[in-house]
Amino acid sequence: MITVLAGGVGAARFLRGLVRCVPPEEVTVVVNVGDDLERHGLRVCPDLDTITYWLAGLVDPDRQWGRADERHTVAEELRRFGHDTWFTLGDRDLATHLHRTMRLHQGATLSEVTAEVAAAFGVTVRLLPVTDDEVATRITTDDGRDLHFQEYWVRERGEPNVTAVRLAGADRARPAPGVLEAVLDAEALLLAPSNPVVSIGTILAVPGLRDAVARTAAPVVGVSPIISGSVVRGMADRLLPALGAEVSASGVAEHYGELLDAWIVDDADAEAVEHLAGRGVTALAAPTLMDDPLVAAELARLCLDTAADLRRRGVGA
Amino acid sequence: MITVLAGGVGAARFLRGLVRCVPPEEVTVVVNVGDDLERHGLRVCPDLDTITYWLAGLVDPDRQWGRADERHTVAEELRRFGHDTWFTLGDRDLATHLHRTMRLHQGATLSEVTAEVAAAFGVTVRLLPVTDDEVATRITTDDGRDLHFQEYWVRERGEPNVTAVRLAGADRARPAPGVLEAVLDAEALLLAPSNPVVSIGTILAVPGLRDAVARTAAPVVGVSPIISGSVVRGMADRLLPALGAEVSASGVAEHYGELLDAWIVDDADAEAVEHLAGRGVTALAAPTLMDDPLVAAELARLCLDTAADLRRRGVGA
Repeated sequence: MITVLAGGVGAARFLRGLVRCVPPEEVTVVVNVGDDLERHGLRVCPDLDTITYWLAGLVDPDRQWGRADERHTVAEELRRFGHDTWFTLGDRDLATHLHRTMRLHQGATLSEVTAEVAAAFGVTVRLLPVTDDEVATRITTDDGRDLHFQEYWVRERGEPNVTAVRLAGADRARPAPGVLEAVLDAEALLLAPSNPVVSIGTILAVPGLRDAVARTAAPVVGVSPIISGSVVRGMADRLLPALGAEVSASGVAEHYGELLDAWIVDDADAEAVEHLAGRGVTALAAPTLMDDPLVAAELARLCLDTAADLRRRGVGA
Repeated sequence: MITVLAGGVGAARFLRGLVRCVPPEEVTVVVNVGDDLERHGLRVCPDLDTITYWLAGLVDPDRQWGRADERHTVAEELRRFGHDTWFTLGDRDLATHLHRTMRLHQGATLSEVTAEVAAAFGVTVRLLPVTDDEVATRITTDDGRDLHFQEYWVRERGEPNVTAVRLAGADRARPAPGVLEAVLDAEALLLAPSNPVVSIGTILAVPGLRDAVARTAAPVVGVSPIISGSVVRGMADRLLPALGAEVSASGVAEHYGELLDAWIVDDADAEAVEHLAGRGVTALAAPTLMDDPLVAAELARLCLDTAADLRRRGVGA
């Protein structure tokens, strides 16, 4: 069993490669829910849905999130009622949120609904929200505001300067059923090339998660989301400094610290391999820009091989 | 102030004529909510929405309900999750239900949301749900089933034989704010050519309504929904017999009984005028098929003139 800690697009692109290397049924993905929000009364789970739509082959190829062949009729009509529509909800996507919201109101857990949604899209990877409890990534800006992550990133286009990031509700959140076991009992635990602050960081902020990642017998192999000091997508470059971390492949590895057993950086960051070796971190360089699914598959294969090698050498246990 | 008791399409077509005769701000419409239902977690109010869309000039001209230029993307996607989609929800229409559901969850009353929706569509007629409480028209079939009205009418296409009709929740329902005043203080109280059983009948089943209609100082003028023994739309012909009423222009007048001060029948039913006169009911014949809005306006004008005439003669007071 392979377990992956995952955010949205970067993780989804990586998972698309991973399921070419191992049967999807043998993959468990623990997914960030700190970006989740309620819009127009609907529960929206951007990272869970992005992964689901990618694995179903139904993601919009241009935006790399949301549904392909999407329309926005409902959102246009909602403006009539004075709803702000800065958070794009497509018509096809909306059906997912409607189903999820209805089931949550009926008393289903987010884990249960996530499994239903995955099944409805023919996705056989096991998707687990990191928690069924309500948590929210909150962003403190240098003008003293406390914003929901999506307000900061989508509504304000990531423009404010960030001074702090926290996971509201984390103190009361419990790992969803199966999450700790998936981390502790995995053959390999992979950190997808996701935002180390608001995706992987949120997952690790749920009580019990960081400890489980530290204690797991599985080798922990991560992929850098930073290439040549830049993000492939998203705003990790704006958030890492708020945590005192350097925006570089090495900087993210050092941010994860002792959680990592191995770290994959892009070929463009090959010099980081030696730098990290000097600090006792096993690092490898490989192509990590996954526009081509074959590159994603090779990257996933390298992660698995690295984990197997570490395992043979008794690392992680 | 003119007050109209109303169901869906027939009432909407009539109201479209009425607002050509009097300023819309002077019209209050008390609307049936017994057909309302929850679909996919959304609160749907077919009669309120049909009237709103007609008065906004946005109704689908072919179906005569729902939005023009409608799509069904969300409904198609909902099938993926195993939702039955026998009740058609268009994408544009869905935005109305989303807004209403969100506001109800926030604690707004149906009256408040109805006013918001009307304003959002530029409708200045005052629309009042007959009650803010939950009621549901239930249909008993001759095979012993107890169906929601929409299950009977839409899902089963009105095919089962009906033995009884009741308004579940009526005993605990209170008239919505302003409803009793609108009936008691009107200059004229009009019964739209709506289903006498499940539209007007539901309104009258809310405690206090029948009494208010009986006591109002306003002349009560109704329009027959039956022409030549047939319904123009809907299934009143299937339901009237369950109540022991005849499916005819006279039969409906006799069903309403002493509530009526005058009754407008179609020219095709001119013989009913004399028949009803013999039973003490003032009846008039006129064109009542309102495919042309000018016919609707003339019919509305006749109702208003009849009410004014009755008022002058002291009828109703």
